[in-house]
Amino acid sequence: MEIRQQLKHYQSRVDNHLENCLPSESIDPLLQESMRYSLFNGGKRVRPALVYLVNQILGGTDEAADNAAAAIECIHSYSLVHDDLPAMDDDDLRRGKPTCHIAYDEATAILAGDALQCLAFELLANDQQQSADSKIKLIQLLSQASGHGGMVVGQSFDLRHVGKPLTLEQLEAMHQHKTGALLLCAVHMGAACGPRVSKEQLDALTRYALAIGLAFQVQDDILDIEGDSETIGKPQGSDLELNKPTYPALLGLEGAKLKLTKLHHEAIEALTIFNENAEPLRALADFIVRRDH
Amino acid sequence: MEIRQQLKHYQSRVDNHLENCLPSESIDPLLQESMRYSLFNGGKRVRPALVYLVNQILGGTDEAADNAAAAIECIHSYSLVHDDLPAMDDDDLRRGKPTCHIAYDEATAILAGDALQCLAFELLANDQQQSADSKIKLIQLLSQASGHGGMVVGQSFDLRHVGKPLTLEQLEAMHQHKTGALLLCAVHMGAACGPRVSKEQLDALTRYALAIGLAFQVQDDILDIEGDSETIGKPQGSDLELNKPTYPALLGLEGAKLKLTKLHHEAIEALTIFNENAEPLRALADFIVRRDH
Repeated sequence: MEIRQQLKHYQSRVDNHLENCLPSESIDPLLQESMRYSLFNGGKRVRPALVYLVNQILGGTDEAADNAAAAIECIHSYSLVHDDLPAMDDDDLRRGKPTCHIAYDEATAILAGDALQCLAFELLANDQQQSADSKIKLIQLLSQASGHGGMVVGQSFDLRHVGKPLTLEQLEAMHQHKTGALLLCAVHMGAACGPRVSKEQLDALTRYALAIGLAFQVQDDILDIEGDSETIGKPQGSDLELNKPTYPALLGLEGAKLKLTKLHHEAIEALTIFNENAEPLRALADFIVRRDH
Repeated sequence: MEIRQQLKHYQSRVDNHLENCLPSESIDPLLQESMRYSLFNGGKRVRPALVYLVNQILGGTDEAADNAAAAIECIHSYSLVHDDLPAMDDDDLRRGKPTCHIAYDEATAILAGDALQCLAFELLANDQQQSADSKIKLIQLLSQASGHGGMVVGQSFDLRHVGKPLTLEQLEAMHQHKTGALLLCAVHMGAACGPRVSKEQLDALTRYALAIGLAFQVQDDILDIEGDSETIGKPQGSDLELNKPTYPALLGLEGAKLKLTKLHHEAIEALTIFNENAEPLRALADFIVRRDH
């Protein structure tokens, strides 16, 4: 299967699963609707795909990874809803559609985000496919990656430094927290919901995840300069306009492209110990550096 | 020990424990500081006290309840931070101190709340005193009580109905979600982190929790009319001013007081099957209906 097809496959798998996980009744149907609106916004589901693919490579079944994949997407979705708020990035559009606080209102968006974060942990705790020990491991991974030591602090560091110069080291630390931690977490969750993984395999997967995590961000920064507004779903050049620190700003556009190639190689190299089973992960790395949105 | 002393005792116990749970290093110290500011805001720690007391009555040790008590307080704290935001209740003061978004800024307050919610689940997953099965049970209880089926939907229902008439049934459903679910959860978490609890005991504790949960809210509404602004920590009459539905508005002030007495009796009656060990829970029910802030 081509990686785009494989992504589509896992996209519909996790979407179906999320559909079943969402509450069907509520004393406030609008909250439910806004949660659904935020979850089903046309996202590529890269994190769930990583969970499924890593789990598959290590010999696990897709059923075993369903809740982990859905949970990490709930976290990703909630972070987008809160990041888009007027007090944060103040974005009206995401992937060409009104953001949650525009489609509903600010209070609803705050609460939808809160409820989505909570749902992630509820899904993991209620996972019928996993032992209690595995469930705890998955919750540890997700909570460590997404809170004060991971995604949330990355976002707050980012906001704190808009318009301020960052060193390359600081920029890297920011991205490692803001987006890298959750991508690494996806890979670790994939490993945690399948059969046993060796230390060597986990180390290799970790190196892979760190490389594609940064590559993802470098390519994002490049697309902000070179991409087409309609394709990337936000005004082209909006990062530069907001005076956000980016790789091209620090390394130049060519330097950033060189960095992207280096990270791409690191990701592929890390997978050497795996046989052709790891082909989809290699293809995903290619996909990340070549995507146009 | 008097209940006030006992509350003080558990207040410092959970505060010490929270102090140890908070991160000591961060790439964004301001996020950390805002989390600490929100957690240590002079709260009465009623939910942690319920966790400790119920666990104690059932023969558990305080150590076994530390993480559960800290976790539920993290959830309560995050909900206050988000509820106070301009897009929600827009409160500048809480317990006489600037709210988180006033002391810091809105973005920091949103993220501090997000990080506190996440920390709650991280604490439960990392609990050294509990088996994996108990940890999962605790996470199930807390996630069910605090998300789309509990606290968060209560808050969104509340916001959706400001200025609109509510029936007594709707008002009760709102409070059962908004504040009752977490108080009930505290009691169930206390039962889950100790030795085995019988069905009869759990039913009795549930009835107790439902009664004090509503009593808490009825007394809040009464205090909004009768209380002293300085003592209650918000402008007296502010609920009426915001045209918020309250028990006194629906039942009259005397009717609300009658309801409070009825709920108080229900709470005490529910504890009949417990011996003098349950004295602190009885005293806590007395404390809730008699408190002046």
